[in-house]
Amino acid sequence: MKIEKSGNIRKSPVETEGAKDVAIRWLISKEDGAENFAMRMFEVQPGGHTPLHTHPQEHEVFVLEGQGTFVYEGEEHPFESEFVIFVPGNKEHQFKNTGDGLLRMLCIIPLRVE
Amino acid sequence: MKIEKSGNIRKSPVETEGAKDVAIRWLISKEDGAENFAMRMFEVQPGGHTPLHTHPQEHEVFVLEGQGTFVYEGEEHPFESEFVIFVPGNKEHQFKNTGDGLLRMLCIIPLRVE
Repeated sequence: MKIEKSGNIRKSPVETEGAKDVAIRWLISKEDGAENFAMRMFEVQPGGHTPLHTHPQEHEVFVLEGQGTFVYEGEEHPFESEFVIFVPGNKEHQFKNTGDGLLRMLCIIPLRVE
Repeated sequence: MKIEKSGNIRKSPVETEGAKDVAIRWLISKEDGAENFAMRMFEVQPGGHTPLHTHPQEHEVFVLEGQGTFVYEGEEHPFESEFVIFVPGNKEHQFKNTGDGLLRMLCIIPLRVE
């Protein structure tokens, strides 16, 4: 069991190529005993973005704060807080902060690779 | 792909025995193409609670709004918005709204049963 204020969980810069001004907190991960999926929080500064990339794992995203654009297979979709986004595996995607403030999102990924 | 404001997604009462004043929105589920895990939002009215129960599936929870008590294996743990809670499978648990306003939480569950 784990119960913790998310802001107390360690934040690290995302250094993946193509990421700009993004930090991550691994809220629930294998270290906590999670075997099937992990919950991460991303914090994107104004003007920042995640990499434009493709990978086999799906994403389940919930937007906590801010405004942005979701780039999916070459099309742009605006979003704001309280939006939910499902990104299937193997589809090109990117999240951009287009607002004046912080963009915060939860992003859940599978941990079992088949 | 799915992108949608969560408040636009259908809300249904939770009628499980032991639940009181709880509603659920299935934000991302099998119907959206999710195969590994599902994201639900729970809305608990003041004085309401989820059932005190045990099941094999784990929960990954993020508290969006409100205050409450997490009952886990007979112990009570207070929480508020921005808390993250990992509930391993087969452990007795319950969420109670102890505040004056709405309690809103995301709860992610696995979809593959082994």
